[in-house]
Amino acid sequence: MYPEHKKISIQRNALESNEIIAKSNKSKFELNKIFVVNLLSSPGSGKTSILEHIIPILKNKNIKACVIEGDVETDLDKKRIDALNVPSYQIITKGTCHLDAKMIDKSLLNIDLNNLDILFIENVGNLVCPTSFNLGEDFKAVVLSITEGDDKPLKYPAAFYKSEIMIINKIDLLKVLDSNIEKIKENALSINNKLKIFEVSCKTNEGVDGLADYFIKQVFIKRHR
Amino acid sequence: MYPEHKKISIQRNALESNEIIAKSNKSKFELNKIFVVNLLSSPGSGKTSILEHIIPILKNKNIKACVIEGDVETDLDKKRIDALNVPSYQIITKGTCHLDAKMIDKSLLNIDLNNLDILFIENVGNLVCPTSFNLGEDFKAVVLSITEGDDKPLKYPAAFYKSEIMIINKIDLLKVLDSNIEKIKENALSINNKLKIFEVSCKTNEGVDGLADYFIKQVFIKRHR
Repeated sequence: MYPEHKKISIQRNALESNEIIAKSNKSKFELNKIFVVNLLSSPGSGKTSILEHIIPILKNKNIKACVIEGDVETDLDKKRIDALNVPSYQIITKGTCHLDAKMIDKSLLNIDLNNLDILFIENVGNLVCPTSFNLGEDFKAVVLSITEGDDKPLKYPAAFYKSEIMIINKIDLLKVLDSNIEKIKENALSINNKLKIFEVSCKTNEGVDGLADYFIKQVFIKRHR
Repeated sequence: MYPEHKKISIQRNALESNEIIAKSNKSKFELNKIFVVNLLSSPGSGKTSILEHIIPILKNKNIKACVIEGDVETDLDKKRIDALNVPSYQIITKGTCHLDAKMIDKSLLNIDLNNLDILFIENVGNLVCPTSFNLGEDFKAVVLSITEGDDKPLKYPAAFYKSEIMIINKIDLLKVLDSNIEKIKENALSINNKLKIFEVSCKTNEGVDGLADYFIKQVFIKRHR
Protein backbone atom coordinates (compact mmCIF):
# COMPACT_ATOMS: atom_id res chain seq x y z
CA MET A 1 0.00 0.00 0.00
CA TYR A 2 1.28 3.48 -0.79
CA PRO A 3 2.19 5.54 2.31
CA GLU A 4 -0.35 8.27 3.08
CA HIS A 5 2.21 11.12 3.31
CA LYS A 6 3.59 10.29 -0.14
CA LYS A 7 0.11 10.39 -1.65
CA ILE A 8 -0.40 13.84 -0.16
CA SER A 9 2.95 15.18 -1.32
CA ILE A 10 2.37 13.89 -4.86
CA GLN A 11 -1.08 15.49 -5.00
CA ARG A 12 0.47 18.76 -3.83
CA ASN A 13 3.15 18.37 -6.48
CA ALA A 14 0.51 17.87 -9.21
CA LEU A 15 -1.36 20.99 -8.07
CA GLU A 16 1.86 23.00 -7.92
CA SER A 17 2.85 21.99 -11.44
CA ASN A 18 -0.72 22.81 -12.57
CA GLU A 19 -0.35 26.25 -11.00
CA ILE A 20 2.85 26.96 -13.00
CA ILE A 21 1.16 26.10 -16.32
CA ALA A 22 -1.99 28.03 -15.31
CA LYS A 23 0.17 31.14 -14.81
CA SER A 24 1.67 30.67 -18.25
CA ASN A 25 -1.84 30.33 -19.73
CA LYS A 26 -2.92 33.44 -17.87
CA SER A 27 -0.03 35.48 -19.23
CA LYS A 28 -1.03 34.48 -22.78
CA PHE A 29 -4.60 35.60 -22.08
CA GLU A 30 -3.40 38.88 -20.53
CA LEU A 31 -1.07 39.60 -23.44
CA ASN A 32 -3.97 39.23 -25.86
CA LYS A 33 -6.52 40.90 -23.52
CA ILE A 34 -8.81 37.88 -23.66
CA PHE A 35 -11.41 37.51 -20.94
CA VAL A 36 -11.57 33.87 -19.83
CA VAL A 37 -14.40 32.12 -17.97
CA ASN A 38 -14.10 28.62 -16.48
CA LEU A 39 -17.66 27.19 -16.41
CA LEU A 40 -18.38 24.64 -13.68
CA SER A 41 -21.49 22.60 -12.93
CA SER A 42 -23.00 19.17 -12.40
CA PRO A 43 -23.80 17.19 -15.56
CA GLY A 44 -26.94 18.54 -17.18
CA SER A 45 -27.18 21.92 -15.44
CA GLY A 46 -27.13 23.65 -18.80
CA LYS A 47 -23.63 25.03 -19.42
CA THR A 48 -23.80 24.39 -23.17
CA SER A 49 -27.37 25.72 -23.42
CA ILE A 50 -26.28 28.94 -21.73
CA LEU A 51 -23.43 29.33 -24.23
CA GLU A 52 -25.87 28.67 -27.10
CA HIS A 53 -27.92 31.63 -25.86
CA ILE A 54 -25.13 34.02 -24.86
CA ILE A 55 -22.76 33.68 -27.81
CA PRO A 56 -25.17 34.94 -30.53
CA ILE A 57 -25.70 38.10 -28.44
CA LEU A 58 -21.93 38.58 -28.14
CA LYS A 59 -21.54 38.02 -31.89
CA ASN A 60 -24.10 40.75 -32.56
CA LYS A 61 -21.88 43.12 -30.60
CA ASN A 62 -18.84 42.07 -32.67
CA ILE A 63 -17.30 40.33 -29.69
CA LYS A 64 -15.23 37.37 -30.79
CA ALA A 65 -15.88 34.29 -28.69
CA CYS A 66 -14.30 30.86 -28.62
CA VAL A 67 -15.22 27.77 -26.60
CA ILE A 68 -13.02 24.98 -25.24
CA GLU A 69 -15.26 21.98 -24.56
CA GLY A 70 -14.16 19.56 -21.83
CA ASP A 71 -15.89 16.17 -21.85
CA VAL A 72 -15.14 12.72 -20.46
CA GLU A 73 -16.39 11.33 -23.77
CA THR A 74 -18.10 12.54 -27.01
CA ASP A 75 -18.00 15.81 -28.93
CA LEU A 76 -21.76 16.33 -28.68
CA ASP A 77 -21.38 19.72 -26.97
CA LYS A 78 -18.76 20.92 -29.46
CA LYS A 79 -21.17 20.14 -32.31
CA ARG A 80 -23.78 22.38 -30.64
CA ILE A 81 -21.19 25.18 -30.37
CA ASP A 82 -20.05 24.69 -33.98
CA ALA A 83 -23.61 25.39 -35.09
CA LEU A 84 -23.12 28.95 -33.75
CA ASN A 85 -20.21 29.50 -36.16
CA VAL A 86 -17.63 30.36 -33.54
CA PRO A 87 -14.28 28.60 -33.16
CA SER A 88 -14.21 25.75 -30.69
CA TYR A 89 -11.79 23.11 -29.48
CA GLN A 90 -12.67 19.72 -27.98
CA ILE A 91 -10.80 18.14 -25.07
CA ILE A 92 -11.89 14.55 -24.43
CA THR A 93 -10.46 13.54 -21.05
CA LYS A 94 -11.11 9.76 -21.46
CA GLY A 95 -12.21 9.31 -17.88
CA THR A 96 -10.40 12.17 -16.17
CA CYS A 97 -12.83 14.10 -14.01
CA HIS A 98 -11.62 17.66 -14.63
CA LEU A 99 -9.68 19.88 -17.01
CA ASP A 100 -6.17 20.93 -16.02
CA ALA A 101 -3.91 23.77 -17.11
CA LYS A 102 -1.79 21.49 -19.30
CA MET A 103 -4.83 20.47 -21.36
CA ILE A 104 -5.67 24.15 -21.87
CA ASP A 105 -2.04 24.98 -22.77
CA LYS A 106 -2.18 22.30 -25.48
CA SER A 107 -5.56 23.56 -26.75
CA LEU A 108 -4.17 27.08 -27.16
CA LEU A 109 -1.92 25.83 -29.97
CA ASN A 110 -5.12 25.41 -31.98
CA ILE A 111 -6.77 28.71 -31.11
CA ASP A 112 -6.07 32.09 -32.74
CA LEU A 113 -5.48 34.20 -29.63
CA ASN A 114 -4.86 37.35 -31.69
CA ASN A 115 -8.40 37.28 -32.88
CA LEU A 116 -10.33 36.66 -29.70
CA ASP A 117 -12.15 38.67 -27.01
CA ILE A 118 -13.67 36.04 -24.77
CA LEU A 119 -12.87 32.39 -24.16
CA PHE A 120 -15.38 30.12 -22.45
CA ILE A 121 -13.90 26.93 -21.03
CA GLU A 122 -16.70 24.46 -20.40
CA ASN A 123 -15.30 22.12 -17.78
CA VAL A 124 -16.26 18.46 -17.29
CA GLY A 125 -19.69 18.20 -15.60
CA ASN A 126 -18.58 17.69 -12.01
CA LEU A 127 -19.11 19.97 -9.01
CA VAL A 128 -16.10 18.62 -7.09
CA CYS A 129 -12.79 18.00 -8.89
CA PRO A 130 -12.64 20.93 -11.37
CA THR A 131 -12.63 23.36 -8.43
CA SER A 132 -9.04 22.34 -7.53
CA PHE A 133 -7.47 23.14 -10.91
CA ASN A 134 -6.72 26.70 -11.92
CA LEU A 135 -6.69 26.93 -15.74
CA GLY A 136 -5.49 30.54 -15.95
CA GLU A 137 -9.02 31.93 -16.17
CA ASP A 138 -10.20 35.37 -15.05
CA PHE A 139 -12.90 33.70 -13.01
CA LYS A 140 -14.94 30.59 -12.43
CA ALA A 141 -18.71 30.70 -13.03
CA VAL A 142 -20.80 27.99 -11.40
CA VAL A 143 -24.08 26.96 -13.05
CA LEU A 144 -26.80 25.39 -10.89
CA SER A 145 -30.12 24.23 -12.24
CA ILE A 146 -33.09 24.78 -9.92
CA THR A 147 -33.92 21.08 -10.34
CA GLU A 148 -30.78 20.13 -8.35
CA GLY A 149 -32.09 21.30 -4.97
CA ASP A 150 -31.34 24.25 -2.72
CA ASP A 151 -28.83 22.34 -0.56
CA LYS A 152 -26.16 22.04 -3.26
CA PRO A 153 -24.10 25.13 -2.32
CA LEU A 154 -23.77 23.70 1.21
CA LYS A 155 -22.95 20.18 0.03
CA TYR A 156 -20.43 21.21 -2.67
CA PRO A 157 -19.08 24.45 -1.20
CA ALA A 158 -15.79 24.76 -3.13
CA ALA A 159 -17.54 25.36 -6.46
CA PHE A 160 -19.47 28.25 -4.93
CA TYR A 161 -16.66 29.57 -2.77
CA LYS A 162 -14.23 29.75 -5.70
CA SER A 163 -16.64 31.25 -8.24
CA GLU A 164 -17.17 34.91 -9.00
CA ILE A 165 -20.68 34.39 -10.37
CA MET A 166 -23.44 31.79 -9.98
CA ILE A 167 -25.90 31.27 -12.82
CA ILE A 168 -29.16 29.70 -11.64
CA ASN A 169 -30.59 27.99 -14.72
CA LYS A 170 -33.99 26.52 -15.73
CA ILE A 171 -35.94 29.14 -13.75
CA ASP A 172 -38.93 28.55 -16.05
CA LEU A 173 -39.43 25.34 -14.02
CA LEU A 174 -40.08 27.35 -10.83
CA LYS A 175 -43.74 27.30 -11.90
CA VAL A 176 -43.95 23.50 -11.74
CA LEU A 177 -41.38 22.56 -9.09
CA ASP A 178 -41.38 23.25 -5.40
CA SER A 179 -37.80 24.58 -5.66
CA ASN A 180 -36.99 27.45 -3.37
CA ILE A 181 -34.81 29.87 -5.33
CA GLU A 182 -34.46 32.21 -2.35
CA LYS A 183 -33.03 29.34 -0.33
CA ILE A 184 -30.57 28.51 -3.16
CA LYS A 185 -29.36 32.11 -3.09
CA GLU A 186 -29.24 32.26 0.71
CA ASN A 187 -27.20 29.04 0.88
CA ALA A 188 -24.84 30.14 -1.89
CA LEU A 189 -24.26 33.54 -0.25
CA SER A 190 -23.61 31.85 3.09
CA ILE A 191 -20.65 30.13 1.38
CA ASN A 192 -19.52 33.18 -0.61
CA ASN A 193 -21.11 36.52 0.18
CA LYS A 194 -19.43 38.19 -2.81
CA LEU A 195 -21.05 35.83 -5.34
CA LYS A 196 -22.83 37.71 -8.12
CA ILE A 197 -26.04 35.85 -8.99
CA PHE A 198 -27.84 35.59 -12.34
CA GLU A 199 -31.16 33.82 -12.85
CA VAL A 200 -31.80 32.54 -16.35
CA SER A 201 -34.01 30.29 -18.44
CA CYS A 202 -32.71 29.00 -21.75
CA LYS A 203 -36.28 28.02 -22.57
CA THR A 204 -37.99 31.42 -22.13
CA ASN A 205 -34.80 33.54 -22.54
CA GLU A 206 -35.52 35.23 -19.21
CA GLY A 207 -32.32 36.70 -17.75
CA VAL A 208 -30.22 35.80 -20.79
CA ASP A 209 -29.71 39.42 -21.95
CA GLY A 210 -28.60 40.48 -18.48
CA LEU A 211 -26.05 37.71 -18.31
CA ALA A 212 -24.75 38.49 -21.82
CA ASP A 213 -24.46 42.19 -20.87
CA TYR A 214 -22.37 41.20 -17.88
CA PHE A 215 -19.92 39.26 -20.07
CA ILE A 216 -19.81 42.13 -22.59
CA LYS A 217 -18.90 44.50 -19.76
CA GLN A 218 -16.08 42.16 -18.62
CA VAL A 219 -14.71 42.05 -22.17
CA PHE A 220 -14.62 45.87 -22.33
CA ILE A 221 -13.02 46.20 -18.90
CA LYS A 222 -10.34 43.70 -19.95
CA ARG A 223 -9.78 45.41 -23.28
CA HIS A 224 -9.21 48.82 -21.67
CA ARG A 225 -7.18 47.70 -18.71
CA MET B 1 7.19 18.61 -12.20
CA TYR B 2 6.29 15.03 -11.32
CA PRO B 3 7.14 12.48 -14.04
CA GLU B 4 4.05 11.22 -15.86
CA HIS B 5 4.89 7.50 -15.48
CA LYS B 6 5.20 7.85 -11.69
CA LYS B 7 1.80 9.52 -11.47
CA ILE B 8 0.27 6.63 -13.39
CA SER B 9 1.93 3.95 -11.29
CA ILE B 10 0.84 5.62 -8.07
CA GLN B 11 -2.75 5.88 -9.28
CA ARG B 12 -2.64 2.16 -10.16
CA ASN B 13 -1.22 1.45 -6.72
CA ALA B 14 -4.07 3.38 -5.04
CA LEU B 15 -6.65 1.45 -7.07
CA GLU B 16 -4.95 -1.87 -6.28
CA SER B 17 -4.91 -1.15 -2.56
CA ASN B 18 -8.56 -0.07 -2.83
CA GLU B 19 -9.36 -3.40 -4.47
CA ILE B 20 -7.81 -5.35 -1.58
CA ILE B 21 -9.91 -3.51 1.02
CA ALA B 22 -13.02 -3.79 -1.19
CA LYS B 23 -12.58 -7.58 -1.20
CA SER B 24 -12.35 -7.59 2.59
CA ASN B 25 -15.55 -5.48 2.78
CA LYS B 26 -17.24 -7.86 0.38
CA SER B 27 -16.35 -10.90 2.46
CA LYS B 28 -17.93 -9.24 5.52
CA PHE B 29 -21.10 -8.57 3.51
CA GLU B 30 -21.14 -12.17 2.18
CA LEU B 31 -20.63 -13.64 5.65
CA ASN B 32 -23.64 -11.70 6.93
CA LYS B 33 -25.67 -12.17 3.73
CA ILE B 34 -26.13 -8.44 3.32
CA PHE B 35 -27.12 -7.11 -0.08
CA VAL B 36 -25.13 -3.94 -0.86
CA VAL B 37 -25.94 -1.24 -3.40
CA ASN B 38 -23.53 1.55 -4.37
CA LEU B 39 -25.69 4.47 -5.54
CA LEU B 40 -24.12 6.80 -8.10
CA SER B 41 -25.41 9.99 -9.68
CA SER B 42 -24.82 13.66 -10.39
CA PRO B 43 -25.62 16.06 -7.56
CA GLY B 44 -29.38 16.51 -7.23
CA SER B 45 -30.57 13.49 -9.25
CA GLY B 46 -32.54 12.27 -6.25
CA LYS B 47 -30.54 9.45 -4.60
CA THR B 48 -31.69 10.44 -1.09
CA SER B 49 -35.30 10.99 -2.23
CA ILE B 50 -35.36 7.50 -3.72
CA LEU B 51 -34.10 6.03 -0.43
CA GLU B 52 -36.77 8.02 1.45
CA HIS B 53 -39.39 6.30 -0.70
CA ILE B 54 -37.91 2.79 -0.87
CA ILE B 55 -36.87 2.23 2.75
CA PRO B 56 -40.36 2.51 4.33
CA ILE B 57 -41.56 -0.20 1.91
CA LEU B 58 -38.62 -2.44 2.89
CA LYS B 59 -39.35 -1.80 6.58
CA ASN B 60 -42.97 -2.91 6.07
CA LYS B 61 -41.62 -6.22 4.80
CA ASN B 62 -39.36 -6.54 7.88
CA ILE B 63 -36.25 -6.01 5.78
CA LYS B 64 -33.57 -4.29 7.80
CA ALA B 65 -31.90 -1.49 5.89
CA CYS B 66 -28.98 0.77 6.69
CA VAL B 67 -27.54 3.74 4.78
CA ILE B 68 -23.97 5.01 4.52
CA GLU B 69 -24.13 8.64 3.39
CA GLY B 70 -21.14 9.99 1.45
CA ASP B 71 -20.93 13.77 1.16
CA VAL B 72 -18.23 16.31 0.46
CA GLU B 73 -19.74 18.43 3.24
CA THR B 74 -22.80 18.47 5.55
CA ASP B 75 -24.93 15.71 7.09
CA LEU B 76 -28.14 17.03 5.49
CA ASP B 77 -28.85 13.72 3.72
CA LYS B 78 -28.17 11.65 6.85
CA LYS B 79 -30.74 13.73 8.73
CA ARG B 80 -33.34 12.85 6.07
CA ILE B 81 -32.47 9.16 6.46
CA ASP B 82 -32.57 9.37 10.27
CA ALA B 83 -36.17 10.54 10.00
CA LEU B 84 -36.98 7.07 8.59
CA ASN B 85 -35.74 5.44 11.81
CA VAL B 86 -33.14 3.23 10.17
CA PRO B 87 -29.47 3.14 11.14
CA SER B 88 -27.20 5.39 9.12
CA TYR B 89 -23.58 6.46 9.07
CA GLN B 90 -22.16 9.69 7.68
CA ILE B 91 -18.88 9.93 5.76
CA ILE B 92 -17.83 13.54 5.11
CA THR B 93 -15.02 13.45 2.56
CA LYS B 94 -13.91 17.09 3.05
CA GLY B 95 -13.32 17.68 -0.62
CA THR B 96 -12.63 14.16 -1.86
CA CYS B 97 -14.74 13.44 -4.91
CA HIS B 98 -15.68 9.79 -4.23
CA LEU B 99 -15.99 7.15 -1.52
CA ASP B 100 -13.30 4.48 -1.35
CA ALA B 101 -13.19 1.02 0.20
CA LYS B 102 -11.15 2.19 3.19
CA MET B 103 -13.85 4.72 4.16
CA ILE B 104 -16.46 1.95 4.00
CA ASP B 105 -14.23 -0.43 6.03
CA LYS B 106 -14.02 2.23 8.75
CA SER B 107 -17.79 2.85 8.65
CA LEU B 108 -18.48 -0.85 9.19
CA LEU B 109 -17.04 -0.59 12.71
CA ASN B 110 -20.13 1.48 13.52
CA ILE B 111 -22.74 -0.70 11.82
CA ASP B 112 -24.33 -3.85 13.28
CA LEU B 113 -23.78 -6.26 10.40
CA ASN B 114 -25.49 -9.13 12.24
CA ASN B 115 -28.73 -7.27 12.13
CA LEU B 116 -28.88 -6.09 8.55
CA ASP B 117 -30.37 -7.24 5.22
CA ILE B 118 -29.58 -4.41 2.82
CA LEU B 119 -26.99 -1.65 2.88
CA PHE B 120 -27.35 1.37 0.63
CA ILE B 121 -24.15 3.34 0.09
CA GLU B 122 -25.01 6.79 -1.23
CA ASN B 123 -21.85 7.92 -2.96
CA VAL B 124 -20.74 11.54 -3.44
CA GLY B 125 -22.80 13.24 -6.16
CA ASN B 126 -20.41 12.84 -9.09
CA LEU B 127 -20.87 10.82 -12.29
CA VAL B 128 -17.13 10.40 -12.90
CA CYS B 129 -14.77 9.54 -10.01
CA PRO B 130 -16.92 7.11 -7.92
CA THR B 131 -17.04 4.72 -10.88
CA SER B 132 -13.34 3.84 -10.39
CA PHE B 133 -13.62 2.71 -6.76
CA ASN B 134 -15.06 -0.70 -5.88
CA LEU B 135 -16.46 -0.55 -2.33
CA GLY B 136 -17.27 -4.28 -2.05
CA GLU B 137 -20.88 -3.79 -3.19
CA ASP B 138 -23.08 -6.35 -4.98
CA PHE B 139 -23.75 -3.79 -7.64
CA LYS B 140 -23.72 -0.15 -8.61
CA ALA B 141 -27.02 1.60 -9.37
CA VAL B 142 -26.88 4.81 -11.38
CA VAL B 143 -29.61 7.40 -10.89
CA LEU B 144 -30.32 9.87 -13.69
CA SER B 145 -32.93 12.60 -13.49
CA ILE B 146 -34.80 13.31 -16.73
CA THR B 147 -33.85 16.98 -16.29
CA GLU B 148 -30.19 16.14 -16.97
CA GLY B 149 -30.61 15.43 -20.68
CA ASP B 150 -30.61 12.28 -22.79
CA ASP B 151 -26.93 12.57 -23.75
CA LYS B 152 -25.56 11.83 -20.27
CA PRO B 153 -25.03 8.05 -20.72
CA LEU B 154 -22.87 8.82 -23.77
CA LYS B 155 -20.95 11.62 -22.06
CA TYR B 156 -20.33 9.78 -18.76
CA PRO B 157 -20.26 6.17 -19.97
CA ALA B 158 -18.41 4.51 -17.05
CA ALA B 159 -21.28 5.11 -14.60
CA PHE B 160 -23.66 3.36 -16.98
CA TYR B 161 -21.27 0.66 -18.12
CA LYS B 162 -20.40 -0.37 -14.57
CA SER B 163 -23.96 -0.31 -13.17
CA GLU B 164 -26.39 -3.19 -12.98
CA ILE B 165 -29.45 -0.94 -12.89
CA MET B 166 -30.33 2.58 -13.97
CA ILE B 167 -33.05 4.48 -12.12
CA ILE B 168 -34.54 7.29 -14.21
CA ASN B 169 -35.96 9.75 -11.68
CA LYS B 170 -38.37 12.72 -11.79
CA ILE B 171 -40.50 11.17 -14.56
CA ASP B 172 -43.45 13.32 -13.40
CA LEU B 173 -41.62 16.17 -15.17
CA LEU B 174 -42.00 14.44 -18.54
CA LYS B 175 -45.31 16.33 -18.82
CA VAL B 176 -43.61 19.72 -18.69
CA LEU B 177 -40.17 19.09 -20.18
CA ASP B 178 -39.21 18.16 -23.69
CA SER B 179 -37.04 15.31 -22.32
CA ASN B 180 -36.94 12.21 -24.45
CA ILE B 181 -36.99 9.24 -22.08
CA GLU B 182 -36.78 6.75 -24.95
CA LYS B 183 -33.55 8.42 -26.07
CA ILE B 184 -32.16 8.24 -22.50
CA LYS B 185 -32.87 4.49 -22.47
CA GLU B 186 -31.53 3.95 -25.99
CA ASN B 187 -28.28 5.80 -25.14
CA ALA B 188 -27.85 3.96 -21.84
CA LEU B 189 -28.44 0.56 -23.49
CA SER B 190 -25.94 1.44 -26.22
CA ILE B 191 -23.32 1.70 -23.44
CA ASN B 192 -24.54 -1.33 -21.47
CA ASN B 193 -27.15 -3.58 -23.06
CA LYS B 194 -27.63 -5.56 -19.83
CA LEU B 195 -28.69 -2.49 -17.84
CA LYS B 196 -32.00 -3.04 -16.04
CA ILE B 197 -34.01 0.17 -16.17
CA PHE B 198 -36.51 1.57 -13.66
CA GLU B 199 -38.52 4.73 -14.16
CA VAL B 200 -39.67 6.48 -10.99
CA SER B 201 -41.10 9.67 -9.61
CA CYS B 202 -40.59 10.48 -5.95
CA LYS B 203 -43.30 13.11 -6.33
CA THR B 204 -46.14 10.92 -7.63
CA ASN B 205 -44.72 7.59 -6.34
CA GLU B 206 -44.94 6.15 -9.86
CA GLY B 207 -42.58 3.20 -10.24
CA VAL B 208 -41.47 3.27 -6.60
CA ASP B 209 -43.17 -0.04 -5.66
CA GLY B 210 -41.60 -1.82 -8.61
CA LEU B 211 -38.14 -0.60 -7.64
CA ALA B 212 -38.69 -1.58 -3.99
CA ASP B 213 -39.87 -5.05 -5.10
CA TYR B 214 -36.67 -5.45 -7.07
CA PHE B 215 -34.52 -4.69 -4.02
CA ILE B 216 -36.68 -7.04 -1.88
CA LYS B 217 -36.08 -9.79 -4.41
CA GLN B 218 -32.31 -9.20 -4.31
CA VAL B 219 -32.37 -9.43 -0.50
CA PHE B 220 -34.16 -12.81 -0.65
CA ILE B 221 -31.82 -14.15 -3.34
CA LYS B 222 -28.84 -13.15 -1.20
CA ARG B 223 -30.36 -14.61 1.95
CA HIS B 224 -30.96 -18.01 0.36
CA ARG B 225 -27.76 -18.30 -1.60
